[in-house]
Amino acid sequence: MSLPNHGANPAHFVRALGASMKEDSIDFSVNTNPYGPPKKIADSWSTYFNKIEQYPEPSSLMLRKTIAKEEQLNIDNVLIGNGAAELIYLIANLYKGKQVLLIEPTFSEYGDACRAFSCPIRTIHLQKGTWKLKLDDIVAEFSKVDILFLCHPNNPTGVKYDTSQLVSLLQEAKAHHVTVVIDEAFYDFSTEPITLAPAIKTNPNLIILRSMTKMYSIPGIRLGYMLASEQLIERIRVFQHPWSVNSLAQQIGLLCVEDKNHARATAIMVKEERERLEQELQSIGYILSSSSVNYYLLTKDGLKKEMNDFLLYLVNNGIIPRHTYNFSGLDGAYVRLAVKSQTENDRLIEVLKGWQTICSSS
Amino acid sequence: MSLPNHGANPAHFVRALGASMKEDSIDFSVNTNPYGPPKKIADSWSTYFNKIEQYPEPSSLMLRKTIAKEEQLNIDNVLIGNGAAELIYLIANLYKGKQVLLIEPTFSEYGDACRAFSCPIRTIHLQKGTWKLKLDDIVAEFSKVDILFLCHPNNPTGVKYDTSQLVSLLQEAKAHHVTVVIDEAFYDFSTEPITLAPAIKTNPNLIILRSMTKMYSIPGIRLGYMLASEQLIERIRVFQHPWSVNSLAQQIGLLCVEDKNHARATAIMVKEERERLEQELQSIGYILSSSSVNYYLLTKDGLKKEMNDFLLYLVNNGIIPRHTYNFSGLDGAYVRLAVKSQTENDRLIEVLKGWQTICSSS
Repeated sequence: MSLPNHGANPAHFVRALGASMKEDSIDFSVNTNPYGPPKKIADSWSTYFNKIEQYPEPSSLMLRKTIAKEEQLNIDNVLIGNGAAELIYLIANLYKGKQVLLIEPTFSEYGDACRAFSCPIRTIHLQKGTWKLKLDDIVAEFSKVDILFLCHPNNPTGVKYDTSQLVSLLQEAKAHHVTVVIDEAFYDFSTEPITLAPAIKTNPNLIILRSMTKMYSIPGIRLGYMLASEQLIERIRVFQHPWSVNSLAQQIGLLCVEDKNHARATAIMVKEERERLEQELQSIGYILSSSSVNYYLLTKDGLKKEMNDFLLYLVNNGIIPRHTYNFSGLDGAYVRLAVKSQTENDRLIEVLKGWQTICSSS
Repeated sequence: MSLPNHGANPAHFVRALGASMKEDSIDFSVNTNPYGPPKKIADSWSTYFNKIEQYPEPSSLMLRKTIAKEEQLNIDNVLIGNGAAELIYLIANLYKGKQVLLIEPTFSEYGDACRAFSCPIRTIHLQKGTWKLKLDDIVAEFSKVDILFLCHPNNPTGVKYDTSQLVSLLQEAKAHHVTVVIDEAFYDFSTEPITLAPAIKTNPNLIILRSMTKMYSIPGIRLGYMLASEQLIERIRVFQHPWSVNSLAQQIGLLCVEDKNHARATAIMVKEERERLEQELQSIGYILSSSSVNYYLLTKDGLKKEMNDFLLYLVNNGIIPRHTYNFSGLDGAYVRLAVKSQTENDRLIEVLKGWQTICSSS
């Protein structure tokens, strides 16, 4: 049995390792909000029952209106998706057969979607260790590609890029008629404002993707959206079947967008925990990517050789990591770990200390 | 404002007519189960809350297993969709640019999906009035097309076709290498067994579509499935994004498949009500399509000319019909009406009697 292609599938991961799941295991492979969904969803749950009997409003009108207002954009700049994954596939559909540029390591769905739609893929790797953009290398590819997918902050590194670099990148892309997709699935876990959404007004080839799955911890219900020029949305929307976004997702989405405190409080708590984890884990010899959000890459000298034992050790101690064997350029030398609640992070620190003790004594 | 393209959108329909919605209006434009979803869903609703925090199982494994067992097929003969509409779009995607045959009037999504994927469409019309297939005409087209969409029982007529005709059609299609999609969205509302699913074992070019939206009255949560050869499923599945079928739909789907009494009891009650409606309405001069399921076409001599007044009269009397202006070959001379509960059907009969009184006195 092969390892799963994504996190958040702990049973599959543990089985593939040939291990068995500890009863009180904590899933550090899932990147959703460690504090769960907004309390208002639980409070309203019983009232949502009647939504299952109602056809979804095909254009998600109310939700688009609310998001457009929030982003100071027009309602026709917003397209709602059955999760951001649907929107990635719709984009790949529009660019079927066209040349794609990916900046690796990154979220694997861009590549998977592009391969499904027969797009040849060109690849540039981030600077190893800093995981920053090599802008000149990217721009040098612009004459050869039609579309660039960029995850920001990036998954799996959690690293955000300099705004000035991104602005230059957008200018160059515009000059070369390259469409830029910036996937901001985790942008709201950053305490600093980092979105490129306002640039949509002046850049008809820019697409911003957002996921509501992560911050609002609703991956089971599927909800994401796209911000882009009216013309681009119109061309992409053609491939979306009606009723794609279920009635419950539309209703819960409205509640999430309006609950600003949930995102703000989460980002602050995540930052505190992330900084604590960095301090504690670096002090015992681990190397962490410089993340701005709710996950990070972890490695240490020589970990690649020990990776199989390390994964088994973690799993046997109730810690489920995200392996990185299928992230181009990581080759399994790292694990991705989520920033979770204080108690859960304490447990992780303890287990990772244990591994260092084993290594130093062997 | 133009009329809606689908039923189940009463507010839009009434606004487009320039009327206002009566408080106790009954939506006869929606084709879902008049008796609502299985009671077990309501009973289990509070336990579903935790599903929103869990990523969907990407391949809907448990649900596929349950459906495969039910249909005496292999698990790889089953593909679950975010509603049957997603599956229609996935099929159109695979057949992008290929020649499509539609038998009109029929469900408009086949044409919409095919146009989205640049498929040229050829059209044959059913026999007017009987709404039966003209088999020779269809077979004569087989040398010119790659794929045929057939809704069975048909929407909007509710008419089922002779099994012998369908068997011949499948044989001819196989000989001409034409893929046949039989959309059985309403098959379980028929008291007689009418599925073509067993033919999948011997016909690699047959696709059966099923909707769980209609019988189980869960259009808000989106759930449908496809039965086909493993090879065809494999080629279609490529275009489906992961997590397309939400966690709640997978869970509720399992419960629905196992609740056989709900479908059986519904079909019997619908048949009784449909036969009563036919008798009552034909006796006062209306003409009804010979439906096997939970909706039918209604017209009467000269109704086409009076249609706008008729629609307004219905809406002003709290009856929301499905207009047929966008069904090819009907041109608005009919309305489609759902078979609903006894009390609701009584109200419909009364209002339709009222229209006859007005007509005969004017």
